[in-house]
Amino acid sequence: MPPSDHPDLVPQLKSVFDPGSVAVIGASSVPGKWGFGVFSRLLLSRSERHLYPVNRQAGEVLGVKAYPDINAIPGPVELAVIAVPPPAVPQVMRDCARKGVKAVVIITAGFGETGDEGKRLENEVLAIARDAGIRFVGPNCMGHFSTATRLFTVGGVEGIHAGPIACVSQSGNFGGYMLNRGNEMGVGFSKFVSTGNEADLHFEDYVEYLAADDQTKVITGYVEGLREPRRFFSLAREVTRHKPIVLIKVGRTSEGAKAAWSHTAALSGEDAVYDAALRQCGVIRVDEVDEMFDVAIALIGQPRPKGRRVGILTGGGGFGVVATDACVKLGLEVPPLLPQTVETLNSRLPERWSHANPVDMAGVNDISYFCMGTLLKAENLDAVLGVSCVGYPADVAVDDLQLPGIEEIRRQVEFMVKGEVGLVDGLLERVQRYGKPLILAHSPAGDRSPALRKLKENNVFVYPSPERAARVLSRLVHYGEYLAGD
Amino acid sequence: MPPSDHPDLVPQLKSVFDPGSVAVIGASSVPGKWGFGVFSRLLLSRSERHLYPVNRQAGEVLGVKAYPDINAIPGPVELAVIAVPPPAVPQVMRDCARKGVKAVVIITAGFGETGDEGKRLENEVLAIARDAGIRFVGPNCMGHFSTATRLFTVGGVEGIHAGPIACVSQSGNFGGYMLNRGNEMGVGFSKFVSTGNEADLHFEDYVEYLAADDQTKVITGYVEGLREPRRFFSLAREVTRHKPIVLIKVGRTSEGAKAAWSHTAALSGEDAVYDAALRQCGVIRVDEVDEMFDVAIALIGQPRPKGRRVGILTGGGGFGVVATDACVKLGLEVPPLLPQTVETLNSRLPERWSHANPVDMAGVNDISYFCMGTLLKAENLDAVLGVSCVGYPADVAVDDLQLPGIEEIRRQVEFMVKGEVGLVDGLLERVQRYGKPLILAHSPAGDRSPALRKLKENNVFVYPSPERAARVLSRLVHYGEYLAGD
Repeated sequence: MPPSDHPDLVPQLKSVFDPGSVAVIGASSVPGKWGFGVFSRLLLSRSERHLYPVNRQAGEVLGVKAYPDINAIPGPVELAVIAVPPPAVPQVMRDCARKGVKAVVIITAGFGETGDEGKRLENEVLAIARDAGIRFVGPNCMGHFSTATRLFTVGGVEGIHAGPIACVSQSGNFGGYMLNRGNEMGVGFSKFVSTGNEADLHFEDYVEYLAADDQTKVITGYVEGLREPRRFFSLAREVTRHKPIVLIKVGRTSEGAKAAWSHTAALSGEDAVYDAALRQCGVIRVDEVDEMFDVAIALIGQPRPKGRRVGILTGGGGFGVVATDACVKLGLEVPPLLPQTVETLNSRLPERWSHANPVDMAGVNDISYFCMGTLLKAENLDAVLGVSCVGYPADVAVDDLQLPGIEEIRRQVEFMVKGEVGLVDGLLERVQRYGKPLILAHSPAGDRSPALRKLKENNVFVYPSPERAARVLSRLVHYGEYLAGD
Repeated sequence: MPPSDHPDLVPQLKSVFDPGSVAVIGASSVPGKWGFGVFSRLLLSRSERHLYPVNRQAGEVLGVKAYPDINAIPGPVELAVIAVPPPAVPQVMRDCARKGVKAVVIITAGFGETGDEGKRLENEVLAIARDAGIRFVGPNCMGHFSTATRLFTVGGVEGIHAGPIACVSQSGNFGGYMLNRGNEMGVGFSKFVSTGNEADLHFEDYVEYLAADDQTKVITGYVEGLREPRRFFSLAREVTRHKPIVLIKVGRTSEGAKAAWSHTAALSGEDAVYDAALRQCGVIRVDEVDEMFDVAIALIGQPRPKGRRVGILTGGGGFGVVATDACVKLGLEVPPLLPQTVETLNSRLPERWSHANPVDMAGVNDISYFCMGTLLKAENLDAVLGVSCVGYPADVAVDDLQLPGIEEIRRQVEFMVKGEVGLVDGLLERVQRYGKPLILAHSPAGDRSPALRKLKENNVFVYPSPERAARVLSRLVHYGEYLAGD
């Protein structure tokens, strides 16, 4: 990458994501208050860093000694989180400047997004920060986190676990929603930030920082409007060469754009222009949160496809129809099988198999690994989509019948499960050897299957529906085509 | 409804869904075999009816005395389930005829879907059944169930619970997938049938039966191709007046249609023709399984909207943008608020609320029930979409900090949760009084919120994303328009 125009950005954002000490101004013991959410979340993350609650009235907050203002804190404060009413924020920012704070997160809402008076207040705060060399997140935001440094200021979101996906959101609430959906889907996060009104730090700054962040392998985000579109597009063109960016850009309709304007005072811009520009710099634009993480997950562990020809393998004909429809609608191809592929499959499948692409194994799932390997090897295919063809559950459905033969049944199930787990390594090896993505969809066994758990540990996820899997594949194909043509 | 052309259908299908006795021919104690899946599932359903395993070799199956053939069973057999290799099926059907069996489910595959020889075998079985007055499901199917009568022949699917949604599937595997997804989504099922090759009983027969079934309030289904399209469309036109039908019809692309043909020998037909015909008879056609159940759930408890004007309420501006985009893209309207609506909302919302539709409460969620009620009442709105504005979790996030003030925090949380639960009845009453649907999306609390659990018990579900909720609303609007114009 060429040298950044913002050489101080990395140390500045280090104070945001990895400060040695944090003060929460407006920290509170009252559930439902922002100052409660932020400070309790910081406590719960159990890091080693110094945490100071600042509260004019309370002597302590959630059991921790509190200070009436930030300058009463004995040690240094690197990051301050502000959750006090808007009119008090300028004075608090002055206090932070006097204290020598390096970075600030302003949770408080009621600034530029409310009109002229709020905008004036926001500019006043910005001027104070600029004078003091303080960079800040917000205002009107929901906080941020970094899993590697155990720093969490986002309240109301639990169960985040660490992983290589970063998320930058221009909406606080929608950001919380993305995190919750991500958690439910098993996504591991590196860093998150709710950017708020972006009075100082812009969406572009976070992307530039994350591009150089070792913990982050994929950057995801929610965009209402960009403050520096020209900077973003030239930055994205560089970044996407080595690190994928997956975005939701809202305001597709004029009504939605109007709502965005009144939300964070972001100008959505002409949607078609954004769409074209994002495509030209290799950004993967998706429509929904689930799709964003579906694609991000696949970008972690799957090879980039070299073309759009898909081999489909299914445990039943209906899936083949649905998966074919989904692929073709998305511009992928489902080409006929080569004679040698048919021959290889004939050697193991019963005569009633479909003898065509999609490959319907006709109810014989125990050779699905052999079939997936065969399709991965086929010269006329660039990717394999497997639907309902992996994952035998380790538990025995008839356990509670207490049958006389139950021990024998258990042994047989154990044998089948062990056999399947033993096949996973070979499959993963073929994915890498042939450099073709393997996208899986639907297994009723889910986490009850040890083979599926092993695949997931190796970043091969099983998507809930064939349609979602096909959509992921089409995004990988387009990204692969972009990289090849760049 | 006009009198049916098939007056015997109800008693015939009663033998399928509520037989006094069931024999499983090919029952087995070996996991992985169809005869194991079917017989173990029947045992697990613990009904009072007689269950007989039939197996040439085994003296007992899963601990139950087995018989070498069906005519060795001492008592009568009303329903027989066949899971033996294809060449044995004609003789088994003859045995069933001799035994006086009323109905049969043929699980076995390898008939019409495999080519001319299979088709010949299928016709032979059909002729034997016709002679004996036996109606049958399949062949090449995955079984069926009826929750009210505790009859389950579908193997590999667990945790089905009873409810008003019936499901008819032309794919066995995809049927299993639908059931699994439905379970995960909390759908309650009345009846299910995997129709297989439909040599005897057709998709149309099941729909006609379910139209008259008291346990079924909504009919859902997966269609590859209809055997009697004319009958279906005239039947559907009658049925959808009082009972909604929600279908996935695959084979949208020519490649998908080809795959369907080789799967169950169903001719998909020209997609655009199907699309128009389904619309003209009030059938709700959806694209994916999740959407099918999303819509079916809403059809149980929500009033039919009288127009397409949506009031949107959100706990944060980003949701408003996303929800507005989603609604407008689907042809719904998000009209400006009436002055009296703004005035009413002003009385309780802080000054920074959006003062427009979408209504962004700007972080003040405790008056969301008041706001939803206000929007339901507004004369220029036909439906309300609420995103991230309900559901306070009953558990305390800081529980494990063992803070000195934790008891007080617990009391406050309990107070907030109780307060919210107390508002649910009033909200439900308003939904009915104004006859407008209330569609909710996203609550991070999920089942941890007692208020959400209460809403769900009253058939008001919270959809995972604003986009899915908007899609449901648009389906309800179109169905409402169809019913109004009919």
